[in-house]
Amino acid sequence: MRTNGVDEHYCTGKDTSDWEKFEKWAETVPYTMRNPLYHWTHLELKRAFGVDELLSPKTARKIFDTCTEKLRTPEYSARGLMKMFNVETVCTTDDPIDSLEYHIALKNEGFQIKVLPTWRPDKAMAVENPTEYRAYVEKLSNVSGITISKFSDLIEALRKRHDFFASIGCKLSDHGIEEFYAEPYTQSEIDAIFNKVYGGKMLSTDEIIKFKSAMLYEGALMDWEKGWTQQFHYGAIRNNNTRMFKQLGPDTGFDSIGDFTVAKAMSRFFDQLDKDNKLTKTIIYNLNPRDNDLVATMIGNFQDGKIAGKMQFGAGWWFLDQKNGMEAQMNSLSNMGLLSRFVGMLTDSRSFLSYPRHEYFRRTLCNLIGSDVENGLLPASEMDFLGQMVENISYYNAKTFFNF
Amino acid sequence: MRTNGVDEHYCTGKDTSDWEKFEKWAETVPYTMRNPLYHWTHLELKRAFGVDELLSPKTARKIFDTCTEKLRTPEYSARGLMKMFNVETVCTTDDPIDSLEYHIALKNEGFQIKVLPTWRPDKAMAVENPTEYRAYVEKLSNVSGITISKFSDLIEALRKRHDFFASIGCKLSDHGIEEFYAEPYTQSEIDAIFNKVYGGKMLSTDEIIKFKSAMLYEGALMDWEKGWTQQFHYGAIRNNNTRMFKQLGPDTGFDSIGDFTVAKAMSRFFDQLDKDNKLTKTIIYNLNPRDNDLVATMIGNFQDGKIAGKMQFGAGWWFLDQKNGMEAQMNSLSNMGLLSRFVGMLTDSRSFLSYPRHEYFRRTLCNLIGSDVENGLLPASEMDFLGQMVENISYYNAKTFFNF
Amino acid sequence: MRTNGVDEHYCTGKDTSDWEKFEKWAETVPYTMRNPLYHWTHLELKRAFGVDELLSPKTARKIFDTCTEKLRTPEYSARGLMKMFNVETVCTTDDPIDSLEYHIALKNEGFQIKVLPTWRPDKAMAVENPTEYRAYVEKLSNVSGITISKFSDLIEALRKRHDFFASIGCKLSDHGIEEFYAEPYTQSEIDAIFNKVYGGKMLSTDEIIKFKSAMLYEGALMDWEKGWTQQFHYGAIRNNNTRMFKQLGPDTGFDSIGDFTVAKAMSRFFDQLDKDNKLTKTIIYNLNPRDNDLVATMIGNFQDGKIAGKMQFGAGWWFLDQKNGMEAQMNSLSNMGLLSRFVGMLTDSRSFLSYPRHEYFRRTLCNLIGSDVENGLLPASEMDFLGQMVENISYYNAKTFFNF
Repeated sequence: MRTNGVDEHYCTGKDTSDWEKFEKWAETVPYTMRNPLYHWTHLELKRAFGVDELLSPKTARKIFDTCTEKLRTPEYSARGLMKMFNVETVCTTDDPIDSLEYHIALKNEGFQIKVLPTWRPDKAMAVENPTEYRAYVEKLSNVSGITISKFSDLIEALRKRHDFFASIGCKLSDHGIEEFYAEPYTQSEIDAIFNKVYGGKMLSTDEIIKFKSAMLYEGALMDWEKGWTQQFHYGAIRNNNTRMFKQLGPDTGFDSIGDFTVAKAMSRFFDQLDKDNKLTKTIIYNLNPRDNDLVATMIGNFQDGKIAGKMQFGAGWWFLDQKNGMEAQMNSLSNMGLLSRFVGMLTDSRSFLSYPRHEYFRRTLCNLIGSDVENGLLPASEMDFLGQMVENISYYNAKTFFNF
Repeated sequence: MRTNGVDEHYCTGKDTSDWEKFEKWAETVPYTMRNPLYHWTHLELKRAFGVDELLSPKTARKIFDTCTEKLRTPEYSARGLMKMFNVETVCTTDDPIDSLEYHIALKNEGFQIKVLPTWRPDKAMAVENPTEYRAYVEKLSNVSGITISKFSDLIEALRKRHDFFASIGCKLSDHGIEEFYAEPYTQSEIDAIFNKVYGGKMLSTDEIIKFKSAMLYEGALMDWEKGWTQQFHYGAIRNNNTRMFKQLGPDTGFDSIGDFTVAKAMSRFFDQLDKDNKLTKTIIYNLNPRDNDLVATMIGNFQDGKIAGKMQFGAGWWFLDQKNGMEAQMNSLSNMGLLSRFVGMLTDSRSFLSYPRHEYFRRTLCNLIGSDVENGLLPASEMDFLGQMVENISYYNAKTFFNF
Repeated sequence: MRTNGVDEHYCTGKDTSDWEKFEKWAETVPYTMRNPLYHWTHLELKRAFGVDELLSPKTARKIFDTCTEKLRTPEYSARGLMKMFNVETVCTTDDPIDSLEYHIALKNEGFQIKVLPTWRPDKAMAVENPTEYRAYVEKLSNVSGITISKFSDLIEALRKRHDFFASIGCKLSDHGIEEFYAEPYTQSEIDAIFNKVYGGKMLSTDEIIKFKSAMLYEGALMDWEKGWTQQFHYGAIRNNNTRMFKQLGPDTGFDSIGDFTVAKAMSRFFDQLDKDNKLTKTIIYNLNPRDNDLVATMIGNFQDGKIAGKMQFGAGWWFLDQKNGMEAQMNSLSNMGLLSRFVGMLTDSRSFLSYPRHEYFRRTLCNLIGSDVENGLLPASEMDFLGQMVENISYYNAKTFFNF
């Protein structure tokens, strides 16, 4: 949440009604001017509910009633909204131990919109807490049917789950990491580190980094074997607020942008894979925009001339999925690479009303290119090509890239 | 000073007359185009002296004579200028050992403009030089009347001075730090470190960081107890030029922007206070604009929903108090937080003619918002609200926030 | 190369004809829209060949034929192109062991365009690989006629080459460094480090940094003795792609922007020289634009008031020599220093057709200043001064600064 400052009472409290929460939000909305929430709120109201008015205490009741009424109709069910917004494919993020039962159910049912899992093995790398880590590994052992007593067992169990994910249609992995990890290690070191943490002992910082280096590398091999696209979302510091973490748990809006040093490790990581001819399609998303140019140049080192845009600089993510953030990412990519090969936006919003954010992205893209034409930086004679480029970035590049 | 390159002879020399100094400056002014000095110079000439001409060698004599004549009248005394610019409150920065005699005199005299001290305990943390530090602690002991022989004595003496500052109307602390310090420490470690440095021994880097961590935390508690606002100005490297330092001393224009890694320590520092429910109102000012987005997200983690904008991202400071720097700060704040809650500009200029820099800030703010309206990014229908927002950021938010 | 993604076959392959390579490039060009290559390509075609059409598969054959025909005429020889573009002086970069035979030949021949060497002693600092380093030192010994058996011999040999470079007209040094190195060291430490690496042993990271600190300092003294300008290009990570390095060697487009921490070392390095009154004219080029403001403030610490703009913030370099990168550099310099003293653009392009990039720079500069005038940020009444400023930045400042 971007507007911490609304009493949590209204966000999470069970003693406030839906209307009270909405009224509070309506009070706050005018104060969000210049924040993307202001645009998103009104774009969602307009596109999903046909509401043209600005949300404020004066209009709140009327808008609440309009939306409530519509939300009671079948068109406004989760599935209805996905159809309304012409969704073709949705990728969720899922832990390796997840049963994917709902993905299977949807597939069996023949639901017209593809809902595919994404392999997100963050917990398999979370060796900071030995007790929690052991519990996780034991669950992984259960769901995979592999007895895990050493590092190679862990990898075998993960690969079995990776196969299972592939069988349900998974084509993507995703990693939430603070930094890139690419320290040299030997197999026996990793074996010893695994035994130590599995035995309940805290690891040193060096050991943690070596272990994560091994895990990232092993995971990258699995993705390459299957031709998946690997994604890295790096640079966040999570759960900054211990008090709120205890009250609300993780992922409740108390995260921030970090300032990690990443270039050399990032380079070593991809170089190792490339050297072994095992580098799969990749998207890198940075959270601190001060790394934009760094990432835009890094991907250039590992393009292979066979898959167009094999290495991708990911769209403005999280705090950066707003006009300025998107523009900065696209400008860096344009200056140091090829915007034309860009696979466009992802959003990690969990809301079924948030699809208009893709429209927000497309309009930002069009505005950028249109301004260049107006300013004489791109030739007006090439409007057809530029139009095709916008369509590619908005849709076709991703379709081809991901094999959806 | 932003235009190093004028021979120091003219800046500091006693063998050049006022006119010679002014003439030299007039020669330089045209070469400052695109530097904020060009705008500031002319804004000050216009607002304070009614001079509409551009300063250059051709106009220098006439402008010098006009200004000199006016400066001889009572309206142009320091107090006169403060009245001319409608100043309500000025906060100075003061060392804990300062007697605050002039603050007391002004208060007793009943001067219509509030002149309040600000608690700036930088020297109480400056343990890099044991000899100077001991001398400082001895002075602190004298003015506080507390015999200081251990760390807890130091804190007791500082708290006594803190009480004294409060009695004179102080409501703010300020800290000039390179980085945030939030290393874990034990009381006995801090006791030992204090004894070591007080005994004249150089501390290790680790010891310095632990000591500063303790001092920042203890100071934050004092501020919280009194409901003050704590301010952190971080990220400068000071006194880069040893030769000029020996000639002119500190704070003479030989400082620069640093590139410190701060996010995790900053997070730990505020988290510790928040966890203990002892986090007071806070303003963070960064000197390297590459941290803008980092700070804008960090404050969001520690808003408490009770005090609007309790955690503030400070306005563009020092090298950044110019149009681009101010805009970048406000854009980051807008995108990742609420611009509407912003308490606006501070300037650390020491000149009584520099008040028009607040006008410069307000015009930059208005230009930003006006451009958004023109570009269709903010609704023209909400002009009243936007006007109120500008007034709040320019004046009312600060008045409420600081309890002035 | 900025558009990795074209199969290396076409870039390096001996089994593709010139036309096939050109055709492939023509196919790619439309996909480079928003990348500077799009502007550069067409600016070169227009200025050098009078081609007004956009390059694409449709126009490729015609343009190829036009250009091929012209390239066969004497006007399009390397010397012809230099005359066509009114080149006055070219500085190459040369290793200390280089014979400079072609510089000497051109000088003897009396070629009307000055072609001067630049002292680039990167290999004299490259102690990471003892075997290669020893081989280099032995070559240096041969060309200088100095037997090198200890560190002071190394410096003596380099100084002899430095003298030789000066005799051929060299006025500049250049250093490609990841970071600034300014660790304290003793002479006996450096002696021991030299002996160790010369003896074939790997150095520790600390030893490498100390050695480079000594080398940078000694080199700076030589430049100061002769009144040369020293240049530092810092912040790149080179040869990220091992596979391509093995195929193609260094400097083939597999480099990227790094994220080094530099401020304190940079400050110490210049401070040491300034303290000893041995700081010569200097230009600092950063590769990561997140350091722009840092560098712009750092140069201010070491201006001496005698040589105007003695310390220079170098123009947007490598990945940054495009409109956004140039503008960001000039905005930082404007805000924190004096744009008017700027010596303008360098390009490290090796192509004899790339001179229009200087036009690209000048147009970017004019656009920046013109926009400021249009927006009321600079006074329209001062057009003459602004025009002179543009001419100075484009030509006269450099001419004066370098004593060309």
